[in-house]
Amino acid sequence: MSRTGRRPGTPETREVILGAARRCFATHGYDATSLRAISSDASVDPALLIHYFGTKEGLFVAAIGLPEPLPAVFADVVSLPAKQAADLLVRRYLQIVDSEHSRNTILALVRSAVSSDKAASMLRGFLSDALLDVIEQRHPGNGDVRLRASLIAAQLVGIAMLRHVLRLPPLDQASPDEIVRLVAPAILRYLT
Amino acid sequence: MSRTGRRPGTPETREVILGAARRCFATHGYDATSLRAISSDASVDPALLIHYFGTKEGLFVAAIGLPEPLPAVFADVVSLPAKQAADLLVRRYLQIVDSEHSRNTILALVRSAVSSDKAASMLRGFLSDALLDVIEQRHPGNGDVRLRASLIAAQLVGIAMLRHVLRLPPLDQASPDEIVRLVAPAILRYLT
Repeated sequence: MSRTGRRPGTPETREVILGAARRCFATHGYDATSLRAISSDASVDPALLIHYFGTKEGLFVAAIGLPEPLPAVFADVVSLPAKQAADLLVRRYLQIVDSEHSRNTILALVRSAVSSDKAASMLRGFLSDALLDVIEQRHPGNGDVRLRASLIAAQLVGIAMLRHVLRLPPLDQASPDEIVRLVAPAILRYLT
Repeated sequence: MSRTGRRPGTPETREVILGAARRCFATHGYDATSLRAISSDASVDPALLIHYFGTKEGLFVAAIGLPEPLPAVFADVVSLPAKQAADLLVRRYLQIVDSEHSRNTILALVRSAVSSDKAASMLRGFLSDALLDVIEQRHPGNGDVRLRASLIAAQLVGIAMLRHVLRLPPLDQASPDEIVRLVAPAILRYLT
């Protein structure tokens, strides 16, 4: 394969493909991104994408995968008193969405979800599993807990959208501490 | 012009163009939509788009224009006590984003803003004028009022996103009354 100038399947190949996938999904969204475009961006043989990820959907899921699975991150809220839980939820969420590494991931997610039913369905399932299920476990049997959890999700998604996609001042420049101080009490209201 | 089968500039032409613009911007976003595509969708001469709206930006602004200007809608919050203000803010907002007429508008706004710096800048300016300025007038001199107002904007934008773009249950099916009951107290916290 070195004759074609394309990278063979070295151990770093998987990471190179994931980086290219994040760039392509972030720029063009899920529907408009082809496996061929990603393999070209990554300078690897298209067959390697199938080898590592099976399908475009598989590659998308891997590309938007966050360093630590979100359900595990948010599962901590289950084990804490409500006030600390609200604080920790906002702080952990900001750590994830503010990280340099996650910027392309978020853009890819949002851009894909607003233009593709398939990507929207994946993000919907992801929020359900990572946030709504976890919060519901705190308050089993409470009638509207899932609606309140979805309003927490709306607050958090809105913050990522305005902070990193629209870059609305002063939210785009506010420190995580300032945001936690103001948002945690609102989250606490929804939790209790 | 009847020879070409295109509609001449009748009084309804402007509305026909606006409807076509909303459909095109909602489907493809701001950058990927051309005046030519809109005139073709509307079956009118491209020159009429220039005649009525000047530029693509002018047409976009007119197309996303809501029935009543949002600053006027939200200006009511300035004149009311905080609790009623929070209730009214959420209720009026839901009336706007839940209306059939606004669905394409919202999709056009979100889809354009995540894929185009120009559209993002317009939406940013719009939120600043319609919401942040209005709330700041309530609490002049309060240091972090603009940050708190931007968190209210984040909550409201997140609700439109999860309710109408991602259609996350149960938020997608919840009644306006249920949402107002839960969200207004959170907004009130940010206002006071």
